[in-house]
Amino acid sequence: MTTDRSGNNDPAELRNFNEEELFAGISGALALRPKIEQIVDEIWNSGFDGIYFTGIGGTYASAMQAEVYMRGRSGLPVYAENAAEFITTGRKRFTSRSIVICSSVSGTTKEMLAMAEKAHTLGARIFAFVDTPATPLAETADWVISYPQNEQLKFYMTCSYLMYLNHEFDDYSEYCRQMEQYLAEGLVNVEKESDAWARAYAEKTAADLKQNPDMPHYFIASGNQYGAAYSCAMCYWAEQLWIKSICVSAQEFFHGMLEIITGNVPVTLFVGEDEQRPLAERVARFLPRVSENYVIIDTRDYAMTGIDEKYRGTVSHLIMRSVMNRVDAWLEYELDHSRSIRRYYRRFDY
Amino acid sequence: MTTDRSGNNDPAELRNFNEEELFAGISGALALRPKIEQIVDEIWNSGFDGIYFTGIGGTYASAMQAEVYMRGRSGLPVYAENAAEFITTGRKRFTSRSIVICSSVSGTTKEMLAMAEKAHTLGARIFAFVDTPATPLAETADWVISYPQNEQLKFYMTCSYLMYLNHEFDDYSEYCRQMEQYLAEGLVNVEKESDAWARAYAEKTAADLKQNPDMPHYFIASGNQYGAAYSCAMCYWAEQLWIKSICVSAQEFFHGMLEIITGNVPVTLFVGEDEQRPLAERVARFLPRVSENYVIIDTRDYAMTGIDEKYRGTVSHLIMRSVMNRVDAWLEYELDHSRSIRRYYRRFDY
Repeated sequence: MTTDRSGNNDPAELRNFNEEELFAGISGALALRPKIEQIVDEIWNSGFDGIYFTGIGGTYASAMQAEVYMRGRSGLPVYAENAAEFITTGRKRFTSRSIVICSSVSGTTKEMLAMAEKAHTLGARIFAFVDTPATPLAETADWVISYPQNEQLKFYMTCSYLMYLNHEFDDYSEYCRQMEQYLAEGLVNVEKESDAWARAYAEKTAADLKQNPDMPHYFIASGNQYGAAYSCAMCYWAEQLWIKSICVSAQEFFHGMLEIITGNVPVTLFVGEDEQRPLAERVARFLPRVSENYVIIDTRDYAMTGIDEKYRGTVSHLIMRSVMNRVDAWLEYELDHSRSIRRYYRRFDY
Repeated sequence: MTTDRSGNNDPAELRNFNEEELFAGISGALALRPKIEQIVDEIWNSGFDGIYFTGIGGTYASAMQAEVYMRGRSGLPVYAENAAEFITTGRKRFTSRSIVICSSVSGTTKEMLAMAEKAHTLGARIFAFVDTPATPLAETADWVISYPQNEQLKFYMTCSYLMYLNHEFDDYSEYCRQMEQYLAEGLVNVEKESDAWARAYAEKTAADLKQNPDMPHYFIASGNQYGAAYSCAMCYWAEQLWIKSICVSAQEFFHGMLEIITGNVPVTLFVGEDEQRPLAERVARFLPRVSENYVIIDTRDYAMTGIDEKYRGTVSHLIMRSVMNRVDAWLEYELDHSRSIRRYYRRFDY
């Protein structure tokens, strides 16, 4: 089963969907480009020995996506770092000439503040995207951009300009032109196009869960889709919807996890369009042979008019997030469970 | 509940346990030191711009353990790499002056051979531990050591000597003396000491699974225990025992996965002794407040006579593996399921 784009395309009927707001949100993030470029220019001109995209939980997933975007393309020393590991293990190669790039919605996450303090103690500088201004992380950072949501896009914009400065992105201007002209509309359309399919998928998932609430749901993905699946399993399904969801990379799936996939074990495979696509395609060929309960979401099924084939891999994780936005909106409805309720997180000290 | 070391300590009654063989296996690995040092000397003298511990599946878990061992201690450019990601995304910073260090039991794993071919095409050199001599990986590598099992130990021996050469391990000789004198006996004793507890744990786990075979089992760990939990969940429990097991890091657990831990959801926490121990301890404090079905395995409960406190963190993942060896032996028995059977892996092409 792949995405079926027929059916309801009337935005008025899409649950928790505000087309204007969504469009404006993405457009506004893209419009941060001059600010991002100015900050990256300052970082560039003052020199650095390493750039550490640092996060925890969902922001760590975004950090992994930034790192894998640059890994094959850039000679720059760019790494993904986990805030809690940085606090404990640290990193001997991290110095006063290192740069932390991070993002936070609240600006108050405990591990992120401790990470920032340690980074500053070592003399390093911090470039933070903080959704909420005048919060501790925003106030401690050396450079701040306060703009809500679109974390992954903000990270990728930063990465793209870094590669441009390093002479690794000759067509940066054309790339930005296409993004600025087409990305917002394209992603809005993905939500509209996927909604009817997403509702059916949510219904099926909810029905499965009613039958067997303890059965885990497996997400499989690679490349920048791995971060998408990781945050989907952990931040959305487990944290918000209390579903026992698991994320495994496509390459690692074949070295262990495959053995537990039989008949009705639910599997969702994310297929993206970056250079790790073949790893997911291998899983796509395998699943029909062993499973009767799998779903393949392939970002190639979505038009993204105006964006060249060669650039699609850099936004396919955003396409997937748009599809999953629709799924999550309907899952909340089908499970009759508010996504804003937490059992434990920030409800007591631990 | 922590490990209870009372009960059966008669090795004759330990399932799948051959004390002499185990002792000789570890001692033999430690005796590889002159060979490892000679190879690392050659690598050191010819220079390098990066050392990439590279694996897939279980060997990737070991690569992550090697990287986290050196991350906080060493200024050397040492990274963990996944063979399948290296083949697809690659790594622009990987050059003809880069070194791959890898390990393989079979010497025939598809992704490892493709990784080696690509590394060689780029002019890089490969140091491979291959259990089985005269296999393709052993034949293509620039340096080979063929010795069975003890992969993690062989990697850590390599790491330790690299740090010694980089003037980051002043007490290397004393460290090696303690390992060579006490590690094999210590780990043999861990298996004996943990066996009775492991059998009870296996019985309980098997009983839970009989009641609810689809309920996932959560492993939580950090530092070098993360690789231990990763391979336990994926290579042992999922692949060999067909249990729906999941591994999540202690730091990430608090940013999503915690919400699904209620009453009877089974959780096993690995607490080790490296610098990330506090991350696991935080989970240890949290679990009693939300769970009625958790187990904490703390490597500190095992004596490891003769090994200084300050060195224990470098072997606590081996202690955990010894405990889990006992658990897995008894789980095989309790589940009446041979660990050597695979549904899919290497049974057909995919």
